[in-house]
Amino acid sequence: MNLKAVFFVQGLLLIFIGIFMQFAALFAWYYGEGDLTIILISSAITIGVGLVLVFSLRFKKEISIRESFAIVTLGWIFASLFGALPFYLSGHIPSFTDAFFETMSGFTTTGASILTDIEALPHGLLFWRSLTHWLGGMGIIVLSLAILPMLGIGGMQLYKAEIPGPIPDKLTPRIQQTAKLLWGVYVLISFVETVLLMFGGMDLFDALCHTFGTMATGGFSTKNTSIAHFNSAYLDYVIVIFMLIAGTNFSLHYFGLRGKMSHYWKSEEFRFYIAIILFFTIFLTFDNLFTIFPDFLDSIRYSVFQAVAITTTTGYVTADFEKWSSSAQFILLFLMFIGGSAGSTGGSVKILRVMIFLKLGRSELKKLLHPKAVIPIRLNGNVVAPNTIVNVLGFMILYLSILIIVTIFMTILGLDLLSAFASVAATLGNIGPGLGDVGPTNDYSQIPFLGKWLLSFCMLAGRLEIYTVLVLLTREFWK
Amino acid sequence: MNLKAVFFVQGLLLIFIGIFMQFAALFAWYYGEGDLTIILISSAITIGVGLVLVFSLRFKKEISIRESFAIVTLGWIFASLFGALPFYLSGHIPSFTDAFFETMSGFTTTGASILTDIEALPHGLLFWRSLTHWLGGMGIIVLSLAILPMLGIGGMQLYKAEIPGPIPDKLTPRIQQTAKLLWGVYVLISFVETVLLMFGGMDLFDALCHTFGTMATGGFSTKNTSIAHFNSAYLDYVIVIFMLIAGTNFSLHYFGLRGKMSHYWKSEEFRFYIAIILFFTIFLTFDNLFTIFPDFLDSIRYSVFQAVAITTTTGYVTADFEKWSSSAQFILLFLMFIGGSAGSTGGSVKILRVMIFLKLGRSELKKLLHPKAVIPIRLNGNVVAPNTIVNVLGFMILYLSILIIVTIFMTILGLDLLSAFASVAATLGNIGPGLGDVGPTNDYSQIPFLGKWLLSFCMLAGRLEIYTVLVLLTREFWK
Repeated sequence: MNLKAVFFVQGLLLIFIGIFMQFAALFAWYYGEGDLTIILISSAITIGVGLVLVFSLRFKKEISIRESFAIVTLGWIFASLFGALPFYLSGHIPSFTDAFFETMSGFTTTGASILTDIEALPHGLLFWRSLTHWLGGMGIIVLSLAILPMLGIGGMQLYKAEIPGPIPDKLTPRIQQTAKLLWGVYVLISFVETVLLMFGGMDLFDALCHTFGTMATGGFSTKNTSIAHFNSAYLDYVIVIFMLIAGTNFSLHYFGLRGKMSHYWKSEEFRFYIAIILFFTIFLTFDNLFTIFPDFLDSIRYSVFQAVAITTTTGYVTADFEKWSSSAQFILLFLMFIGGSAGSTGGSVKILRVMIFLKLGRSELKKLLHPKAVIPIRLNGNVVAPNTIVNVLGFMILYLSILIIVTIFMTILGLDLLSAFASVAATLGNIGPGLGDVGPTNDYSQIPFLGKWLLSFCMLAGRLEIYTVLVLLTREFWK
Repeated sequence: MNLKAVFFVQGLLLIFIGIFMQFAALFAWYYGEGDLTIILISSAITIGVGLVLVFSLRFKKEISIRESFAIVTLGWIFASLFGALPFYLSGHIPSFTDAFFETMSGFTTTGASILTDIEALPHGLLFWRSLTHWLGGMGIIVLSLAILPMLGIGGMQLYKAEIPGPIPDKLTPRIQQTAKLLWGVYVLISFVETVLLMFGGMDLFDALCHTFGTMATGGFSTKNTSIAHFNSAYLDYVIVIFMLIAGTNFSLHYFGLRGKMSHYWKSEEFRFYIAIILFFTIFLTFDNLFTIFPDFLDSIRYSVFQAVAITTTTGYVTADFEKWSSSAQFILLFLMFIGGSAGSTGGSVKILRVMIFLKLGRSELKKLLHPKAVIPIRLNGNVVAPNTIVNVLGFMILYLSILIIVTIFMTILGLDLLSAFASVAATLGNIGPGLGDVGPTNDYSQIPFLGKWLLSFCMLAGRLEIYTVLVLLTREFWK
């Protein structure tokens, strides 16, 4: 392992993070709530450490597979450690564990918060909190790839370690070009959402923060009661639409923006994604109609919002779904394991993997009747390679294993069964709110110290799609 | 599909079931509690219908794959329908749904009961209830194969449909011989347990009934408080040992009884089985020590009993584990998904599948570092065929799918989240007691009508290891 190369890239990343803090400084300056100095100091420390690393270490251009896993995993940890500085140094989040949890939750687009009173934070810090979502959504490393030509050669490894979807889709053969295009699409759609939210009455600050939370499928709000605060059907539906967009494979948007709209409907994953959301929205709408929303339009509005917010792993809240029926709650819990499309900013297992999973189950049933037949699994008309199938299943196995093991630890730390399970499901899936003690009207502040670190690990493992993080914990890696 | 052949075999099966009811009649006669007549009438009806089917239908010797699935699934349903007669006709279980549920729970060795006062039943009915366990444990069809030479030719298909373990182990090339040997071992070990239980103070009736419940990993007791009723450390430990034996692959016992004890330790599955139980017993012992059993020996006794009872899917109870810590409860819930060894009478996912599952996860992690390497999965030193791996994973997928879908239905029927999930996990895994409303001190009597039929389906699907039952629900099957 070439540790110098690993830490050199960490240095680059820190310089980035520090520069982005300046945007938060802008809002801190504008609102003048006393957080400007701390943000500037944090930025200076972050950039400073970055510069020291970059100038004291020599860059070696070839990055091995092994190094790429270390760079990406460590990169996200470094980003969260330094990104936590504004919260911690300002004293608004007095415990460093909490500040780290909040920042990791931001970068990984989880949206789980330890803040009991979000609105007490000054605007500069709130902006930084939401910006971490947006940076993490499309990927910090991918962003670096887009901007820094020097990372070009080892770039493909890094790209695959940060976005390890089951079937990689490169828009262009050159990885730097792909990274640029994806970020371009992301910026463009974010701009449109910001404008539409402002039409609905949000000021620029709230519109930007909620755009970051939506487009990254993050879930941080600037308000204590999340989106429910605005109490506007227009805003609810705008956010629903952009959550749906954020949960879609961004390469489809790339083609869509170039006028090739048919790509959407040709994609089996996209069709399945829409079908799942439609199915469960209808279910929830009728279920809620008979229980808590006697008005049909209300029932649609709150049901579709929550179904989309959970499935895309955004985690915004417009209704206290812990008051819904237990079937509605179970369905939301189940949707936490579906997630966005591959190549979207959504987390969790991802639609593509769920599809391959289900197709495999069906093909095994068919094999019973025709034991000698070879029944290939197809996706978009193409046969899925056996290696991909095994990779998908391996992912599921590791996902389940982390879920079970960390849940056991959370119960040991004193959480009840449901809260323990839901807190792990909601962080591993990068969703945010869970059920029980971490439900939509609660937060993560009461989770014990050690539990916050375990859940931070889950957020990271979930965001980097398990393999990249877990491989660092194997003996083989350190041989 | 040759329906005549299918129903011909149903006829044979019913004759068997009717004959076995005579054993219950013996106890009914001895105890003289008024259930003799009803048992004799039920037996007569069952044998009568069986004879009509056998004599009115011609037997066609070749059994196709398709027919074998139908014969086995239908066989278990017929056995439960007619096996329910004594309970229903006697009026002791006035609802036929309940009587069917109880009998299906018996044959599938689940041990979930709708009886609120077990001890109110006369001895003849209680004996029949326990006997269904014992018959279902080693397999009704396998028993028929052992006894009826006429089933010889299509036998292998039937055997595979009833015992569809991931890696079939035939003791001899002739399936009838294998069936005979397995049943021989089963009878022999059952005899030993009965004697040992009588040494501990049980009368012949209780000793037999609890032997049936243990050896079949069933869980029906003749007492309202299950094994806790006897309050004897000796009996607890005897039952622990025989639950462990019942959860072991019976072909190992076959070799063990012939003096080849080394087969046990050579089996990777057996070692893993013992390791899992040891690990979780130690965990539970220490957890309980600090919570509800301050005495160390007590803590071991109750912890090992419950760990073994749940893992082997027996479901006997010596302690109200709903009063245990939430980590202990989660672990018991988790153990419900492990199950006995392949080729044992235990249900659920089974150790061998869990092992293949975990090995696949590890091999996929290794592949990350060596993308070009072929990393085979080995078991007992042999490479596991890719087809077997995919089959195991297909099993997991279907198992999970049933779990989720039926849980959704159970919540719709009004159960709370935990009770819904636990009731499906406990019936699909053929365990018996779950958590919440179906916990160790409760029973299944309060489950709504439709829920009882859904859970009966789960018990059957679990006992026949999913594929055999689900294939009947596919379009391809009926083409």
